[in-house]
Amino acid sequence: MKQNGNNINIMSNITHLNFEPGSVWLVGAGPGDPGLLTLRALEALQHADTVIYDALVSKAILEMVRAGASLEYAGKRGGKLSAKQPDIIRRMIECAKSGQRVLRLKGGDPFMFGRGGEEALALAASKIPFQLVPGVTASLGGLASAGIPVTHRTTGHAVTFITGHGSDGKLPNELDWNAISSGSPTLIFYMALANLENITTKLIASGLKGSTPCALVSNATLPSQKVVESPLISLSITAEENKVEAPAILVVGEVVDLRKALDPESTCDSRANAAVKLTSHWQQKVG
Amino acid sequence: MKQNGNNINIMSNITHLNFEPGSVWLVGAGPGDPGLLTLRALEALQHADTVIYDALVSKAILEMVRAGASLEYAGKRGGKLSAKQPDIIRRMIECAKSGQRVLRLKGGDPFMFGRGGEEALALAASKIPFQLVPGVTASLGGLASAGIPVTHRTTGHAVTFITGHGSDGKLPNELDWNAISSGSPTLIFYMALANLENITTKLIASGLKGSTPCALVSNATLPSQKVVESPLISLSITAEENKVEAPAILVVGEVVDLRKALDPESTCDSRANAAVKLTSHWQQKVG
Repeated sequence: MKQNGNNINIMSNITHLNFEPGSVWLVGAGPGDPGLLTLRALEALQHADTVIYDALVSKAILEMVRAGASLEYAGKRGGKLSAKQPDIIRRMIECAKSGQRVLRLKGGDPFMFGRGGEEALALAASKIPFQLVPGVTASLGGLASAGIPVTHRTTGHAVTFITGHGSDGKLPNELDWNAISSGSPTLIFYMALANLENITTKLIASGLKGSTPCALVSNATLPSQKVVESPLISLSITAEENKVEAPAILVVGEVVDLRKALDPESTCDSRANAAVKLTSHWQQKVG
Repeated sequence: MKQNGNNINIMSNITHLNFEPGSVWLVGAGPGDPGLLTLRALEALQHADTVIYDALVSKAILEMVRAGASLEYAGKRGGKLSAKQPDIIRRMIECAKSGQRVLRLKGGDPFMFGRGGEEALALAASKIPFQLVPGVTASLGGLASAGIPVTHRTTGHAVTFITGHGSDGKLPNELDWNAISSGSPTLIFYMALANLENITTKLIASGLKGSTPCALVSNATLPSQKVVESPLISLSITAEENKVEAPAILVVGEVVDLRKALDPESTCDSRANAAVKLTSHWQQKVG
């Protein structure tokens, strides 16, 4: 991005919210690629006194914090050293009460399986002023970056997002797998890796075909991004063989087939061949 | 945002994709508030030769297009003059083939009920190079701005997004309402307004209680944003009485109750009262 006079005009189009001392901004940092930060998140990074960030916030984004701000790690990742949720909340409130501008920076979107609501509720209860700043959620960012549209007209009109990892680390108990499997032609699981075999078993038991196309996108939008495709039936073996690492997004459904035509890593010729085949396939389906 | 030396360093953290002449960038503009544009979308606005934009892209964002770029309206909104999808695709390809940098700018995220996949498929078939740039999808942006987290730990572990408006303007036929109603505790409908009565009737017929909390967020994240809450049973009447205008996002489920504690328009005191009540309510539920 050029830093020229034009930019100053551009920035004046943004309604600048005042990042008040003693307040907390709960901000989504997007999936990892700094290009997917919002302008408001950038503004927050440039004005914060203290940044309390999660494991899923990328290094490149943390480097954009203004010089002089204090950076505090509050990462939570299975198996690794982590701050507990009540400690994070206590720390946010403490910093805000001491008059700091507190930026609570979370990977993806804070309100999509990000526990942003819980943290905001605690701030509200303590009468701390706050702003909720959404971000590009990890799955929408990661899928676009893998060449998979989340929805496609011919593959249905609903999509369900599920967390594969409850607050105890296990697959949430109360999920109604039959309803989930028949409600949406596309299913997207956050934090899918730890319980992958369990997820695929439950999906097949509830009626999904073993041949249903699936993709795992790990380290979505980062230079280390890795995409692994597999039919549902062999997904957990394929993931193991390919040493897929967390964090990973799982997408289940026919939309995965579009990747052949939309994969940014493919050549124009191979994308064109796939696109022509797919278009005729969808047309037959619709017609 | 200050334009200082620091900014130049910040921008160097972004992996700059080359916006090549003869290519198309399919970019999400977010829900409307220019602060929710991504840095990559801003980059695209500053480098495009031709911008083909939808009705849902806000005026404030269009003003950020670089001087000298050509702006073409390709809006599609029920009842209003609109370009047809094949015409839009033909125009994108024509502009790209003539060597222009084409920015196809869509409201929200282009791949979440935005037909971005279809457009990308047509570009692939014509061997036009393209980039897929996700955005903050309208519902996640709009709900945060209304003080409603999309998910909350105590209200379940799944959320389903549905389009209330198929390509023929009607509620899509193939939706399995029973499965949708029992699969996720939170349901979010895009373009919900035209078929609102039909949606509420179907949800109640498939087992949702008439007392289920609902909210409509129209013109999400714009200065004209309006939020209307109602139990499911009386939603369509309430929407009519309040003259809710399209575009509107509908959210159905217990998460709507969190707005009492998180509404940015409320006072700190009233948010605190609501937060204390809600926290004790959820704790009883979990415990």
